[in-house]
Amino acid sequence: MTVSDRWLLPDGVEDILPPLAGQIESLRREVMDTCQRWGYQLVIPPLIEYLESLFTGTGHDLELQTFKLTDQLTGRMMGVRADMTPQAARIDAHTLGQDGITRLCYAGHVLHTRPRHMLTGRTPIQAGCELFGSASESADLEVISLMLEALRVAGLPRVHLDLAHVSIYESLISAAGFDKDTEASVFDAMARKSVPELDELLGDCAEGSAGARLRKLARVNGGVEALDEARSILGGASDALDAALDQLSRVADMLQRDYPEVSLGFDFCELRGYNYHTGLVFAAYVPGHGDSVAKGGRYDAIGSDFGRARPATGFSLDIRALVALGQRSVQRPGSVWAPADTDPALEQAVAALRATDTVIRALPEDAHTDPASKGCDRQLVKRDGQWILEALG
Amino acid sequence: MTVSDRWLLPDGVEDILPPLAGQIESLRREVMDTCQRWGYQLVIPPLIEYLESLFTGTGHDLELQTFKLTDQLTGRMMGVRADMTPQAARIDAHTLGQDGITRLCYAGHVLHTRPRHMLTGRTPIQAGCELFGSASESADLEVISLMLEALRVAGLPRVHLDLAHVSIYESLISAAGFDKDTEASVFDAMARKSVPELDELLGDCAEGSAGARLRKLARVNGGVEALDEARSILGGASDALDAALDQLSRVADMLQRDYPEVSLGFDFCELRGYNYHTGLVFAAYVPGHGDSVAKGGRYDAIGSDFGRARPATGFSLDIRALVALGQRSVQRPGSVWAPADTDPALEQAVAALRATDTVIRALPEDAHTDPASKGCDRQLVKRDGQWILEALG
Repeated sequence: MTVSDRWLLPDGVEDILPPLAGQIESLRREVMDTCQRWGYQLVIPPLIEYLESLFTGTGHDLELQTFKLTDQLTGRMMGVRADMTPQAARIDAHTLGQDGITRLCYAGHVLHTRPRHMLTGRTPIQAGCELFGSASESADLEVISLMLEALRVAGLPRVHLDLAHVSIYESLISAAGFDKDTEASVFDAMARKSVPELDELLGDCAEGSAGARLRKLARVNGGVEALDEARSILGGASDALDAALDQLSRVADMLQRDYPEVSLGFDFCELRGYNYHTGLVFAAYVPGHGDSVAKGGRYDAIGSDFGRARPATGFSLDIRALVALGQRSVQRPGSVWAPADTDPALEQAVAALRATDTVIRALPEDAHTDPASKGCDRQLVKRDGQWILEALG
Repeated sequence: MTVSDRWLLPDGVEDILPPLAGQIESLRREVMDTCQRWGYQLVIPPLIEYLESLFTGTGHDLELQTFKLTDQLTGRMMGVRADMTPQAARIDAHTLGQDGITRLCYAGHVLHTRPRHMLTGRTPIQAGCELFGSASESADLEVISLMLEALRVAGLPRVHLDLAHVSIYESLISAAGFDKDTEASVFDAMARKSVPELDELLGDCAEGSAGARLRKLARVNGGVEALDEARSILGGASDALDAALDQLSRVADMLQRDYPEVSLGFDFCELRGYNYHTGLVFAAYVPGHGDSVAKGGRYDAIGSDFGRARPATGFSLDIRALVALGQRSVQRPGSVWAPADTDPALEQAVAALRATDTVIRALPEDAHTDPASKGCDRQLVKRDGQWILEALG
């Protein structure tokens, strides 16, 4: 181990320095404040939990993403949280245990064993909101609207929102009655949107069968017109599918009214990254960035895995990635330079200024420091026995 | 694994719920804002690093406190940070690499394998400031003053500040020339302030020897009068010891001038918890709580372990513990209740109010919800086709 090795950081792990760290903190605060003004109350879930509670209802993907630790106090296995949404669901179902509607928000580091994508690395700063106790479309709409507000706060231009409904795929695949292997192959091809593979897997399905509908549906995506196409493919298949399409249509109408600047798209077989979702799901994209910048949806099953059935929907995003993609400019006011002097009157002047301003005290080593290089545009100087503020020139 | 086991959290790990989570967030922001107004710039060190970089210059205690993980990308061992101060030192020495004075602050979760004390558990929220590039007493004084400001912000009453200087013990023990075993026994007895053990270990040392001075010094602690006692015990032993006592005396004078409400104490053989410190160290206490609420000191050696010698001093504290001990009252203004109604005019009224107020939208499940139970003191109602704000009551 040489000296230079000691400061190498693992891949996907970074030091966040000034001024970027300040921009992240500022966005984190504004997103949390926005959530709180919509009635979401802050919770701070723990960084570690026993694996059983971290993985309850969450699916296999999250297990692979989670770093495992041994609890020295009990010998049991713990994990470092890779996603805070299931933690919020556990808090709602058990720790809070309220009846009626519960709205929670949170922000904090999560840890991934492998980078999910380039921009976030392995230590994203996840922020999000979760709404428990309402199975209504209004709840879905509120959560999507709040996510769009958060992206507006982040200064993200030209947001595209994809809407989907995981029950569409689930209801068709279950109606198709494939064996487990075929089902897994279809899921895999569908998640990768591989039309040739789907043609091969589903090409023999009879016209009008669930398999044939799946194959056609995989080709459909786009704006509101895609909704009509999906209707013609799924027409008469089942009441549940009709209801899902109707819901997508109504939610899209409301979003177009309230967020006309957001472009809407539909993807009826979206599966990637929705590990524990059960209903309407959504993801926001910006031009030039392949992965979603924020996503979420309905997950009505986690609560019951914790012993208390609760409808739930929510979204989360990565504050670090949003700062990299956004166009926020944080203007910091200039600081004040105070000389190295032990005069009690200077101490008082500095203390008074610090109620509103940043004051940097010179230290003995600062004899040749240019205050401007420290972000100062004013300095405290003694004139006629009084400490006064003067512009640096 | 029964359902009820799934929500058990490990010992020393907790869900932080409303309103406590909001109080912690509020104090975190105020402490960080205070540090920034003193010229400290925010950094966000990573949650995980390779063990070599986490442990460079930090000593054995931190190793025991650190959870280890295997990096799946390289097979190398990583650790979850147990202390952010060494991370800040690495950032100063390498990542930033600035000449002159660098002031950094940070706040975030750290993880401990075992609880350090009851109040913090294993996932404290560490906040702190570090000042690099100044070996001056003014730097020590600035850092202590800023720590006292942070405790003032936290609303801690009757703060007691212990000052010490690790070079006093180190210089005496090295002058005594004991073998390694005796040195370890003396260190252990000194850390536990066990006077009988020290009498046994050091009883044979000749009057005026370093060992005899150590034995006497272990009995000395208290207010400013203890400084005079120490002077008489250490008088003539070495210039370095005299200089350390002079420094303690000058720093104490300045603190008494600027923070007369803080009581001062001296403990010349303080060793507990100072793993990597080299000079003046300090710890703040409040009545009724055995462990320190904030602590710090000078650590001039870590930078050079990273290949770049930098004098350094700083402090850190646990935001979670401060909220538990402090007497801050955070008054939240009442929220506004908005009915479940899709009128676009209501949407506009809600959006306008949310610029400053919290507005909770009723959902279909809220038919029997009392808005007051959700913290609302006003509601939006439609009168003559207009949405207006009315007091609830």
